[in-house]
Formats: sequence, C-alpha cells, structure tokens
Amino acid sequence: MFSYAIGVDLGGTNLRIAAVDENGKLLEKLSTATDLTHGRDAVIAEMTQAIRRLLDKFQGQGESRGVGIGVPGIIDMDTGMLRESPNLPGWSEFPVHAEIERRLGIPVMLENDANAACLGEKWLGAGKDYQSMCMLTLGTGVGGGIVLDGKIWHGMNGMAGELGHINVEPEGHPCKCGSRGCVEQYASATAVVRMAREAIAGNLSKELARAAEDAGKEFDSRHVYQLAMKGDAATQQIFRRVGRALGIMLADVVNALNLPIYVIGGGVASAWDAFAPTMMEEIRKRSFVYAATVPEGPRPAKPNKSTLITMAQLGSDAGLYGAAYLPLQRAGVKSGNAKL
Amino acid sequence: MFSYAIGVDLGGTNLRIAAVDENGKLLEKLSTATDLTHGRDAVIAEMTQAIRRLLDKFQGQGESRGVGIGVPGIIDMDTGMLRESPNLPGWSEFPVHAEIERRLGIPVMLENDANAACLGEKWLGAGKDYQSMCMLTLGTGVGGGIVLDGKIWHGMNGMAGELGHINVEPEGHPCKCGSRGCVEQYASATAVVRMAREAIAGNLSKELARAAEDAGKEFDSRHVYQLAMKGDAATQQIFRRVGRALGIMLADVVNALNLPIYVIGGGVASAWDAFAPTMMEEIRKRSFVYAATVPEGPRPAKPNKSTLITMAQLGSDAGLYGAAYLPLQRAGVKSGNAKL
Repeated sequence: MFSYAIGVDLGGTNLRIAAVDENGKLLEKLSTATDLTHGRDAVIAEMTQAIRRLLDKFQGQGESRGVGIGVPGIIDMDTGMLRESPNLPGWSEFPVHAEIERRLGIPVMLENDANAACLGEKWLGAGKDYQSMCMLTLGTGVGGGIVLDGKIWHGMNGMAGELGHINVEPEGHPCKCGSRGCVEQYASATAVVRMAREAIAGNLSKELARAAEDAGKEFDSRHVYQLAMKGDAATQQIFRRVGRALGIMLADVVNALNLPIYVIGGGVASAWDAFAPTMMEEIRKRSFVYAATVPEGPRPAKPNKSTLITMAQLGSDAGLYGAAYLPLQRAGVKSGNAKL
Repeated sequence: MFSYAIGVDLGGTNLRIAAVDENGKLLEKLSTATDLTHGRDAVIAEMTQAIRRLLDKFQGQGESRGVGIGVPGIIDMDTGMLRESPNLPGWSEFPVHAEIERRLGIPVMLENDANAACLGEKWLGAGKDYQSMCMLTLGTGVGGGIVLDGKIWHGMNGMAGELGHINVEPEGHPCKCGSRGCVEQYASATAVVRMAREAIAGNLSKELARAAEDAGKEFDSRHVYQLAMKGDAATQQIFRRVGRALGIMLADVVNALNLPIYVIGGGVASAWDAFAPTMMEEIRKRSFVYAATVPEGPRPAKPNKSTLITMAQLGSDAGLYGAAYLPLQRAGVKSGNAKL
C-alpha cells in the first residue's frame, strides 16, 4: 500500500488540488478557477469537497498522510489566521485553518504559497539534491521561501521568507508594504508591466507602445519579454532592471545565508535569458561570498560546494507538490532524488 | 568537578584567552596585545602557549571540554583555512586550524569572530532567552552572526552571516568587498570617521573640525558621538545616516528570517542614543513583518512572540564567551539563563 497526501494550491485565480504519492508521483489533479464572487465560504466549501472526493477515491488503495494547503498570504502559525492576503480579499484575520479542519474533520497543514513552492522544488525540482535552498517566485508579486536543513524556515511566527520585500533601492518605487524600492517593485510581473508603461509614456519604444495597444487589457509581462527577445532596446533595458534588482537582492541573501542553491520561478522566470546576464553580473560584483564559492571556468558546480543560481523546474506545480509534501514530510517520508 | 572550556578571541589588536566554566563563569582571563610584527607563527606560538598554561592550571580541578577560537576572517569550514582576513595580514590561505591543533595536540574549534560574538550573546547576553537571533558587531567593519535553533548558521561552507555586506545604497560608497553601498560603509566605526571627515571637508561643522584637529591621529567614532550628544547638528546627521543604513539592513533580515531578536554590539553600538531613533523608524516603515510583530503601546515584548531590536550586553567579551561556548555546546552543555 502506497502513502500519499493531498496538496492544495489555493490561488487568487486558480484552485488546484492533487493527490501525490510518497515518491512525488501525481495520482490525480483537479483544477478549477477560484470563484471569489460567492465569497470565502463558497471557496472553502468547494475546496473541502474536492479534498474529500480525492480522499474517498484513494481510500483502501493508499494510506493518506494528510492534507497540505498553500495559501497566498502571511499565516500566523500560532493562530492559523491569515495576517495579510491581498489576493484573497476578505480572508485576512479569519481562522482559515480551524475552519478547514472543522469542515474536513481531519488535521490539515497550512503554508504560505511561496514557502510551499520552495518546498516543492526542494522535494522534486531544482533543489532535490540539496538540503538548504531559497526560492523566489516572480509572479504578481515576488514571493520567497527558505528551506534550511530540509525544512521550511518559518521564523518566530511563520512570517519568514518575505524575500520580495528585501530592499534594492532605498528611495525607489513605493511598495504596498509601506517601504520603497522592494525587489518586488522591479522583478514581479506587475513591475515589468509598470516599467513597460513607463517606457511607453516616455516615448522610449514604438514597438512596446504598439504591443500594448494591440494587447489592450491583456498586456502582460510575456508581451514585454517577446519584444525584448526580438531585440527592442528599451524593452531589453526593462529586463536589465529586473536583473539588477534580483542581483542586488540575491547578493544580500548569499552574504547572509551562504546557501548552496537559489531557485527562481514564477511567470517572469521564463524571461531568464533577458534578465539573467545582468543578475549574475550584479551578484558576482556584490557578493564576495558568491565570488568565493562559484566554480571557475568550465568546472561543473559541485552540489553543496558551489553556489548555484538557477531556474525552477516544476513550473506552476511547485506549490502543489510542496503542499502535498508537508504532511508526507511530517510523517517521515524521505525527500531527495525522487523523480517526477 | 566542573566542566570548562578555553575561549580565545584573536583580534588584529588584542589577543584574549579565557577559561570559562559551563555556567558561563569566567575562571581566568589573559589579555595581551596581538604582536603581528613578528609574524603569524609568533602569534600562534604565544596563543598556544597561553592556552596550554590555562589547561595545565585547571587540570585536576575541572574537566576541559576543549578550545574554541574566534578569528577575524572568513573560515572555510571544509579546509580550516582562512579565506579572507584583512586584520591578520599574511594569514589567509593558511591552514590555521591544522597548525593550532598540531601545536596543542588537542582538537580545537575555529569560528569567525562575529559568529562567536553572536553565540556569546545567545549563551549569556542579550539573547539568552532566545533560541534564534542575529547579531551585528559595529567595529572597524560590520560583522554579523546568525544563530538558528541554538546553533551558529554556517551555510554551505562557513561563510554565512556576512551581514555587514548587505546592500543599503546600490550606488553608494565603494566597499573593499567589491560592491558599493554595503551597510559596513555607513555603520562601522571606520564609516563614522569617514563621514565626519566628509562633513569637515564640506565645512558643515566647526565643532567637528576642532575635535578632529585636537585628537589628531586618535580621532575616532567616540569623538564624533560625543559631539552628537552635545547637540552638534552635522554630527547628529552622521548618526542618522548610521541609523538609516542599519534600519534598511535590519528590515531586510527581519523580512527574510523573522527572528525574535536582533542584537547590536561593537564600539559604535554605544552611540545607540544617536542612531537608534532613525534605525527604528526605518525598520518600522520598511518591514511589515516587523510592524506586525512589534508590541503596540506599553505592552512589554514577549520573548519569541515580538520582534526585539536591542543592544548587546557582553561588550567586548561576547566573542570570548562565544568561543568558549563552542566546545561546551558540542559537549552537550545546555545554554540559556546562565548568568554571568
């Protein structure tokens, strides 16, 4: 009999629920749009029904190790309340953990979505050969997660890993967190679109203006990336700003934590070719710890001896796998080298 | 029979060696100037002779748990080599760990001095009620140390905790690490003196110019602090820059690690009154994790529930105690609530 767990990725846009076995094999996946219009309780009802359906389906075949749920927001680990959740309006200061457990009648583990994504990449993705890593998820915002010695580092009350708010420009663009110049203001999909609109307003690129007009409300960071790849100079400059911000921020984390691997995922990570050269240049210049631990010349990186900065491997499923891994890890299922 | 250990703080200026018992009681302390003029081998010989003297003295009375040595430089934990050590010229790329063990004939534990100071404050100082903390040492440079779950976080190869090189001004003052605008360039004693000389060159303060002239070559950050406390506006502005840099940097670390306590030590920490108001203002503004975890109004901070930013308590002995604690900790001696 195999062990398995249910992982849930509750996003502001999509609700995805999967049964995953102890080796990381996907047994079944359900995806729906997150319908926030009928309110919080309707979303929780739909989620708990889908979880129940999967649990019923595999009953008798596999041994359930539990349920892990990734949510977009800061979770107070002491109370199971969401402290902040801009993408789930009306959910903050709500005892989401208790309510889900009440409806399911079994214990669940709640985790910040970016932390879950980091754990997923550690279990089955870019970090599977490492015990410690950090991950940035470049999406609507910039999420962060830190895994130390195999476990998510929560800090004092579950708020650790907010790497999107590391400062890269003290008097830079205002951030909704209250600061200015957080890396999120230069490396998120939202920031890429903002910088593109700034370039259009400054008459810096006709191509970009045309692309924005053609796309209308659908204009997003992928359009900007496509133009950069076609060689549009002003658009390439935007991704150099992305790379610079990421490089400053990663240099800070390398200097502070000396981790073996830093993983970049989320939608904007697909623009790797456009931002990575500047990012790597900044890190090399700004972190002597990086410079001292990067393999020279053609020598391949040795796991846990050299610093590796690399793309995520699990795409948008990282958080789903990470959420499923939460109860498996608690149950003592070993990680590492399991292949998808 | 009591347990004890030998702690060594090998600085570029002073060599201090102490026998400390398992409760943190200082049994004996030897201090000499570090005489670098006769070379590395002479310093190591003097140090190992003094260690041997203390070990001989307490033989029969107490059980030695070993020797811990704090050194000013980056230690490669795999090889026991100093990677960089600006204050010990000629020591880098030298197998200092192996050489000391060879001379003493017993195993020793080598640690970066700022890490040792952090561990000392965790054992007996400001962090003694906490399991995780970080410490900044504002001296000639800005040293950093991170203790997680009771142990120094070394990272992949012992280079973690280089918090002095977290960026606070991307195009700021050049740092010898190769970057620009590291917090060390605004919050070290060296930086305070540099900013004072800049203010003098800019004709911003006659008081400061006079103090610098009077002190001559002895002019240091304490003179600057004294003027700030006397109300000299240009000098106060220097400490606001110190506070701003520390605030930006600490906000980064709070957002990343969500630790319960951040401790500031080293010579410049005595200027707390002059820089702390600006520092706290910056942290509050720039870290929503801090803002969410700071006690409101007159409520006292609860250990491990609220974020505390505070002065170190052990002064220049922090590193000595921390070095002694290294072998005691390895031997399983419990920390916490031991009083000096």
